[in-house]
Amino acid sequence: MAQIFPVVMAGGVGTRFWPLSRERFPKQFLDIVGSGSLLENTISRLLPLADAANTYVVTNRIQSDIVSRQAPLIPKENILVEPFGRNTAPCIGLAASWIRRVDPEALMVVSPADHIIRNTEEFLRILRLALHVAEERDALVTIGIQPTHPATGYGYIQITEEELDRNPYRPQGVYQVKTFAEKPNLETAERFVRSGDFLWNSGIFIWKARTILKEIELHLPDLHEQLVPLQASLGEPNYPQVLEQTYGLIRSISIDYGVMEKAGNAFVVKGEFGWSDVGSWDEVVRQTPIDSDGNSLRGKVIVRNSSNNFIDAREKLVAAIGVEDLIVISTPDAVLICRKGESQEVKEVVDFMRRKQMNDYL
Amino acid sequence: MAQIFPVVMAGGVGTRFWPLSRERFPKQFLDIVGSGSLLENTISRLLPLADAANTYVVTNRIQSDIVSRQAPLIPKENILVEPFGRNTAPCIGLAASWIRRVDPEALMVVSPADHIIRNTEEFLRILRLALHVAEERDALVTIGIQPTHPATGYGYIQITEEELDRNPYRPQGVYQVKTFAEKPNLETAERFVRSGDFLWNSGIFIWKARTILKEIELHLPDLHEQLVPLQASLGEPNYPQVLEQTYGLIRSISIDYGVMEKAGNAFVVKGEFGWSDVGSWDEVVRQTPIDSDGNSLRGKVIVRNSSNNFIDAREKLVAAIGVEDLIVISTPDAVLICRKGESQEVKEVVDFMRRKQMNDYL
Repeated sequence: MAQIFPVVMAGGVGTRFWPLSRERFPKQFLDIVGSGSLLENTISRLLPLADAANTYVVTNRIQSDIVSRQAPLIPKENILVEPFGRNTAPCIGLAASWIRRVDPEALMVVSPADHIIRNTEEFLRILRLALHVAEERDALVTIGIQPTHPATGYGYIQITEEELDRNPYRPQGVYQVKTFAEKPNLETAERFVRSGDFLWNSGIFIWKARTILKEIELHLPDLHEQLVPLQASLGEPNYPQVLEQTYGLIRSISIDYGVMEKAGNAFVVKGEFGWSDVGSWDEVVRQTPIDSDGNSLRGKVIVRNSSNNFIDAREKLVAAIGVEDLIVISTPDAVLICRKGESQEVKEVVDFMRRKQMNDYL
Repeated sequence: MAQIFPVVMAGGVGTRFWPLSRERFPKQFLDIVGSGSLLENTISRLLPLADAANTYVVTNRIQSDIVSRQAPLIPKENILVEPFGRNTAPCIGLAASWIRRVDPEALMVVSPADHIIRNTEEFLRILRLALHVAEERDALVTIGIQPTHPATGYGYIQITEEELDRNPYRPQGVYQVKTFAEKPNLETAERFVRSGDFLWNSGIFIWKARTILKEIELHLPDLHEQLVPLQASLGEPNYPQVLEQTYGLIRSISIDYGVMEKAGNAFVVKGEFGWSDVGSWDEVVRQTPIDSDGNSLRGKVIVRNSSNNFIDAREKLVAAIGVEDLIVISTPDAVLICRKGESQEVKEVVDFMRRKQMNDYL
């Protein structure tokens, strides 16, 4: 098999983990589950497939220092800094350009930096299958997660039933992509899950660098045209200027809609490996072990007559008396106290603070 | 009328207002209700009766600096520092000794530093009546609070029904003391309140300095014997040593049981002036105005879908989402989250931290 190059996309700017996450310190850099940051975990998880020297991280200017600090094994030149966020297609085009330059046959594993995966062994098994399909068929492959409930916080991928009989990978859970669907409402999500041909969109992609660049040329010709001069500048003194110019001209578009949905050779490998994109504190709560009182306690916490609470007090002591079903996040300058099931409202609190220009807390 | 000398007893070391109160910064120094500390309020409340130069504060070594800071109008020599806490009888004996030296006919108004009184006008009216009784009859007078509910957190004073007919002050609500009762259980408290002859013990006393010293001589002869050399040392260079020796020998005893209960000339003036000794966060909650959602919010607080909460976030931002009936106290290093009605458990939390030697938080 060709060399494998993990690409970790770490440019997210989520607000849903306030007060632990901040504008300058978003979710992927947080140690949400207590075993290193999500970025650190994402990089480590992929190390059995490829050397750290082959691993790339795409990030932005504000976060590149945090990335360097959290990923000391990654060569500095492998940390790619986008001047502006332009969604996943340009990000992937940039990384693929660098990687193809190193190895024209390179296989890429593209992964968001901010997911939780509990069963790493199974995840790697699925990835190896996907790499096999990508290499053998010059295909674009993504991982679809077998839904466990009608989640409204995830995008979905519809797989093509008609093609399945002619699909030699069927027994291994490999399907063709039909469409991508944005986060649905509950009714739609229930229909998706009932239908059996929708999987959660993991945002994980596997392909050869040259294959994805070819498909970008086919389906996103304007992005391709911007990438050509950028590719010529890689490693040259004018690279920073060209990068800046390129990103100034590129439109935002996702690789899902821009390429995967249109490509004839797009496959989905179905996986079940304890995946979560941990989109809210409630999701973290679901991923966290509880004690005999149903509490998940972290840091300096004292509880009395209290049950089913998630309390993260790494930064200052929290004493809870007689309370239930709360999510409490204590940081040096702010405390969140949220009823379980209502953590989607955190976003509204952050929006409120933004409107009020409470910049110290953003 | 003779000169009046307010004496504020500010040596308390309560733990019930953790995390706002700490061992070195107890309740009386806190701005619990948002209009200055309880000590500051206590001193100001008595200023219509007497000059600041006549006001004394009795405190301890640890707290004397805080007292000086919070009571800048009080002459430094009027801040009396007890080497050890020995309950109220020695404290009052010390203050009376100093005050009698200034004015042999002096009237004292002794008050704890940590109460809330909402109706200052009525409070002063009651005090003036008490001062009148104290002066005219050379009496020991205390203020009994008309109970509004069978509180278990207060001591009670039983008034003597038999004496009432012969009492010329009856129409004005002046009675004789029968006994003092410690904090009762609920059943006893209900019986007390039903009986009609029990009042809440405010811990406020009015008497001439020489009268209380004479009664101490009668009923606490051992304390009297210790006070005699101390009185000889007042203003002398050996005062600190004599004070230290005296307090080393004195036993702890309250003025209620040591003197008031035994004295033949002890009276109770009944008062209703919005008094509370604010013994718990729940009591503070009851004393605090609420907004249209039933919330009392102080400091940097953001609430969504939340009602009937008391949130004090003077020291760091608190965001509350979907929560009800909580008491939240946010300080620089600790946060309390307590179900309303359970704030008596705060003491247990502090005891726990003491056992665990979490001294930074005590």
